[in-house]
Amino acid sequence: MTGWIAIAGLGPGDERLVTEEVRATLAEATDVVGYIPYVARVTPRDGLTLHPSDNRVEIDRANHALDMAAAGRRVVVVSSGDPGVFAMAAAVFEALERRPDPAAFDIRVLPGITAMLAASARLGAPLGHDFCAINLSDNLKPWDLVERRLRLAARAGFAMAFYNPRSRSRPHQFGRALEILREECGPDRLISFARAVTTPDERLETVTLAEAVTEMADMRTVVIIGNADTRRVGRFLYTPRSAG
Amino acid sequence: MTGWIAIAGLGPGDERLVTEEVRATLAEATDVVGYIPYVARVTPRDGLTLHPSDNRVEIDRANHALDMAAAGRRVVVVSSGDPGVFAMAAAVFEALERRPDPAAFDIRVLPGITAMLAASARLGAPLGHDFCAINLSDNLKPWDLVERRLRLAARAGFAMAFYNPRSRSRPHQFGRALEILREECGPDRLISFARAVTTPDERLETVTLAEAVTEMADMRTVVIIGNADTRRVGRFLYTPRSAG
Repeated sequence: MTGWIAIAGLGPGDERLVTEEVRATLAEATDVVGYIPYVARVTPRDGLTLHPSDNRVEIDRANHALDMAAAGRRVVVVSSGDPGVFAMAAAVFEALERRPDPAAFDIRVLPGITAMLAASARLGAPLGHDFCAINLSDNLKPWDLVERRLRLAARAGFAMAFYNPRSRSRPHQFGRALEILREECGPDRLISFARAVTTPDERLETVTLAEAVTEMADMRTVVIIGNADTRRVGRFLYTPRSAG
Repeated sequence: MTGWIAIAGLGPGDERLVTEEVRATLAEATDVVGYIPYVARVTPRDGLTLHPSDNRVEIDRANHALDMAAAGRRVVVVSSGDPGVFAMAAAVFEALERRPDPAAFDIRVLPGITAMLAASARLGAPLGHDFCAINLSDNLKPWDLVERRLRLAARAGFAMAFYNPRSRSRPHQFGRALEILREECGPDRLISFARAVTTPDERLETVTLAEAVTEMADMRTVVIIGNADTRRVGRFLYTPRSAG
């Protein structure tokens, strides 16, 4: 097989956060597949075919990429952020697993700046101690598991980053997540809403859990909740390296 | 105050993973401070003073950066990976908190590709579902807390990334961590040792917990343990997006 697939992270939005590795790989590609707004970030050129697709068709998109690679094309699958964090890398491997010849494919994963680390940087250092990343969507797991994981993560003393906190199809679950967090962490715990970080639409807001309301999050928001030691210094939020 | 501090992540080692934002900021700097091997990655030039320092002097280094910024210098504090993940960002804010005038400082944090995400990309997508990041060093927290956190993270079903799994001063703790993980996750759970990822010294090894021995990790290794669904496909390791 002469074709290949690179699963690439475009970072959170600012073009200065795209790695040179990703740029160089896009320059060699014949085809780019991905969710519409991410493909829109790739500069068109002769010899490059863009294949934007809608949300929630990850496996179809992955199969399309595998088919094109099998036909000799050089395919970049683009995600925002990092492709390995709630993005296209796992979807491509799921599709690969169903093929009769997974070892025949030339696949690379190219890391990118994931949203929670871009958000953390803009806020200060809220993930400066042990932390976890949880996808709050129940598209691919039962909501009960999300609730259980939130409680255990709080009891473990993790700072937490939440991806996909809220969407139009799931308007109420984030409110339930906030209830659980208030029960486990108390009303004074700091929580940050980082929307569209590093883009012109960026909005950063830090409040206590008592003050947090669901409307502070939307589909473009990463939510970060500190651990018991997280605090403000100047305009920043940070979590000390030490604990206990 | 005309000076500033940028706390910058140089990524895991491959120069193509340094962001343009970090490059541009280094080009404006008058001073670079950081741990010796990270400062060694910055190209010397006229007008730029390099201040390499030893490990374990993070607060001294942060104070040096604050003093230079207060004196009008343009200071970049370099970390490998991402500065907000077990690196210099939290240390600078700790030092800032002890100053009488924290709001007077112009500080930015510039994200980078953190080791666990570079390792995950090289391995496939082992962090493709909810995951956590734990610093296994007990320099800054009691070992009991590490053990408790490992157990709760396993029970929550997180994939896990471990930073600083083992050093000469702590030769036995990683063995204890492996014991706990075997108790909580069983002998068949997959565990990956990713050493010096994206550098010429890179070494990747994936085994079961039953096969894992402490000697597979050293100071340059990030360890990634999958969740109950993590599996191999071709030469890759991945964790499905779905669960439950």
